[in-house]
Amino acid sequence: MNYKMIRYVMGQMLRVEGVLLLIPMMVSILYREHVAYVFAGTMCILWSIGGLLTWKRPKEIEFYAKEGMVIVAGTWLMMSICGALPFYFSGEIPSFVDCFFETVSGFTTTGSTILADIEKISNGLLFWRSFTHWIGGMGVLVFAFALIPQNNGNNMYIMKAEVPGHKVGKLVSKLSSTARILYGIYIFMTIVEVIFLYAGGMSFFDCWIHAFSTAGTGGFSSKNASIAYYNSAYIEAVISAFMILFGINFQLYYFILLKDIKGFFRSEELKYYLWIIGIATFMIALNIRHSVDGYFSALRSAGFQVASIITTTGFVTRDYEQWPFFSQGILLLLMYLGAMSGSTGGGIKTSRIILLFKDTYIGIRKMIQPNRILSTQFEGESVGNEVMRGVHVYIGLYLIILASSMMLLLYDGLDLVSTFASVSCCLNNVGPGLGLTGPVKNFSSLSDFTKIILSFDMLAGRLELFPMVVIMMPSTWKCK
Amino acid sequence: MNYKMIRYVMGQMLRVEGVLLLIPMMVSILYREHVAYVFAGTMCILWSIGGLLTWKRPKEIEFYAKEGMVIVAGTWLMMSICGALPFYFSGEIPSFVDCFFETVSGFTTTGSTILADIEKISNGLLFWRSFTHWIGGMGVLVFAFALIPQNNGNNMYIMKAEVPGHKVGKLVSKLSSTARILYGIYIFMTIVEVIFLYAGGMSFFDCWIHAFSTAGTGGFSSKNASIAYYNSAYIEAVISAFMILFGINFQLYYFILLKDIKGFFRSEELKYYLWIIGIATFMIALNIRHSVDGYFSALRSAGFQVASIITTTGFVTRDYEQWPFFSQGILLLLMYLGAMSGSTGGGIKTSRIILLFKDTYIGIRKMIQPNRILSTQFEGESVGNEVMRGVHVYIGLYLIILASSMMLLLYDGLDLVSTFASVSCCLNNVGPGLGLTGPVKNFSSLSDFTKIILSFDMLAGRLELFPMVVIMMPSTWKCK
Repeated sequence: MNYKMIRYVMGQMLRVEGVLLLIPMMVSILYREHVAYVFAGTMCILWSIGGLLTWKRPKEIEFYAKEGMVIVAGTWLMMSICGALPFYFSGEIPSFVDCFFETVSGFTTTGSTILADIEKISNGLLFWRSFTHWIGGMGVLVFAFALIPQNNGNNMYIMKAEVPGHKVGKLVSKLSSTARILYGIYIFMTIVEVIFLYAGGMSFFDCWIHAFSTAGTGGFSSKNASIAYYNSAYIEAVISAFMILFGINFQLYYFILLKDIKGFFRSEELKYYLWIIGIATFMIALNIRHSVDGYFSALRSAGFQVASIITTTGFVTRDYEQWPFFSQGILLLLMYLGAMSGSTGGGIKTSRIILLFKDTYIGIRKMIQPNRILSTQFEGESVGNEVMRGVHVYIGLYLIILASSMMLLLYDGLDLVSTFASVSCCLNNVGPGLGLTGPVKNFSSLSDFTKIILSFDMLAGRLELFPMVVIMMPSTWKCK
Repeated sequence: MNYKMIRYVMGQMLRVEGVLLLIPMMVSILYREHVAYVFAGTMCILWSIGGLLTWKRPKEIEFYAKEGMVIVAGTWLMMSICGALPFYFSGEIPSFVDCFFETVSGFTTTGSTILADIEKISNGLLFWRSFTHWIGGMGVLVFAFALIPQNNGNNMYIMKAEVPGHKVGKLVSKLSSTARILYGIYIFMTIVEVIFLYAGGMSFFDCWIHAFSTAGTGGFSSKNASIAYYNSAYIEAVISAFMILFGINFQLYYFILLKDIKGFFRSEELKYYLWIIGIATFMIALNIRHSVDGYFSALRSAGFQVASIITTTGFVTRDYEQWPFFSQGILLLLMYLGAMSGSTGGGIKTSRIILLFKDTYIGIRKMIQPNRILSTQFEGESVGNEVMRGVHVYIGLYLIILASSMMLLLYDGLDLVSTFASVSCCLNNVGPGLGLTGPVKNFSSLSDFTKIILSFDMLAGRLELFPMVVIMMPSTWKCK
């Protein structure tokens, strides 16, 4: 294990986080808030420690998949702890565990909050809170690759561990160029959303908050009532559209950049993703049409909520706990399904679920016709054993983490329904999602132990399980 | 598809069911109940139809895996419909859907009941109800193989489709001898249990009822209060022990018959199964010790309930809805885990869960050390890709059936918790199991639509999913 390289990369990332804090600091200065000092202080700490860690560049820069995962898990943990400092130092969130939970929820784009009254928080911190969504959505390390020119081919291991999806590839031969293209598209789309929201009468500050939360498919809002505060069909339509757009694989946008529109629509996963959104919206609208006034209202509420849940954003416009159970069940399924691979969304990912369905179907077909040669087809090619094995190991691990987290929460005294709802929300990075829990609508009432377990689940969900599990396995640290 | 052979085997099975009805008829005569006429009438119908179907023996007796599954699914459906006739004709259960549900619940060893007052039912029908557990536990077709000497090698396909477990093998070269050995052990153990229960002061009739229900790991009782009625530590201990014994792979008992005691204890699955029972009992006892009076009482309640749920029997002695949520969570996990392969128990089966765990672990290890050669070891040998693929297809299909059934029940208007609890109980063949549902403690209040979906789930669970899915796939009926 190349410990020196792990130390070095993590030190670099601390410095990057220090740079990132400049932006909320400037926001604080703009609003003449005292919290600006807090940001400045935190930056000094981060730069000092980061500087010490990166003092000596390691000679041996080679590393492999294992180190890649350790770096990603370590960086995310470290950045969450350090990112929690401004909340803690400002005194606006008194408990450090709460600060940590809120920051993990931010970076992992979950959007679960321990804040009972969001509108009391200073603008600088609200900005930082949503900004963590934006950074975490595309990936902190991918961000660093875009920022710092590097020639280390091993960084691909880091990218594979950080970018969601069953298959991660580079767009162009150089990794830093790939990272720049991804962030370029990301910044462009975010700015377009800000413009659209501003045109709808949202305040300039709130436009950025909600655009960051949409882009990262996070769900933090600056309003206690979330998007319901605006009660505007236009704003809901804009946010719905952008949630769906940010749930699409970013590789496909690269096809558009290359003017290969056909390539964009050739994607099988995209077809399933859009069909599922369409069908789910239609079914929920039909199901709730009597609880709301008229078909248009039903379609509006259903569409927004489907987009919000399938992309695991978690914005809310209606109290869907009042909807029929069938609609709640559909939302629950969408939560597990999640958005597309390579997007900023969470969940198990549409591609994995499609592969699971197809492989199961082929498995049954093979039982009926043992002599026929059948293979699972996806995205126009035959799916290899290695890919399917990856999906199966993922699903297996997912079920194990789900069950173990639930047992730990139950042990802590939480009831069955709240446990199921909060673990599902956190592991899928949905956030203030399916309001099944009732009492857990914000997470402040939970114990510190439960908050730490849920923080682990959020990180595990965002990093697609493996990095968080690998750092906990003794064999990672034992062998060379 | 060899339709003639399917017709012939199903006809034979109708005649076998007719013979089986002789036993409850004799019980009715003994108790001088009018229901004896009902049994006699049903027998006549079954023999006539069965006689017609088996009039001409097909020339072409070859068939394959597909026909094997169609035969098993068809036979179980047919026997459930015909087995429901005595309940319906007697008028003691007025609705035919209820009769069908109760019979499916019997044959599949689920033990969910639509009866609000069990003690009102006549003895003949009570006997038939528990007797279906006993027959269904080891398998109706396996029973027929033991009864009717046959030389058809293709019957192995039927056995594979009916006997639970990820791997089904013959004990001896001849299938009918294997079936006879299995049923021999089964009958012997049932009689031993009857003797033990009788020694504890249970009435002779009730001894048989409860021995049948234990043997099949079903859970039907002749008392409304289930085993709690007796309030006897001795009876609870006897039933606990036999539930655990009937949850063990019957192949292992054959080792004992061959005086190979080491072979019995060599089984890795057995070790896990016993450890899980031990640990779960210990943890629940520790968790509930304050809610009951003293450690002995805690251990007694915990042990009985763990044995009852892991073997998916579903007998009840305590209202565990009053237990802490952690204990309820453990019982919920055990419900999905289920008993051993090749036993009469339901659930996903211990072996599949162990394989899933091991394979996931190896998958992660391979990520860390891509150059090391690692393979999943189980029962002392390396697990092949085909076996793991079978487990994965099973888990995939299990999740799909679970989710689809839940959506259908939610569509029917049932709430989320009741839906989850009743589908879990039926798909895992637990029955009147985890009393999460509250209102669904007996299933009579549900709609006919929901009862039919749950009947499908019970059959799917007992036949390990594939046969019930295969008969629903168009490709089964289309191609040759």
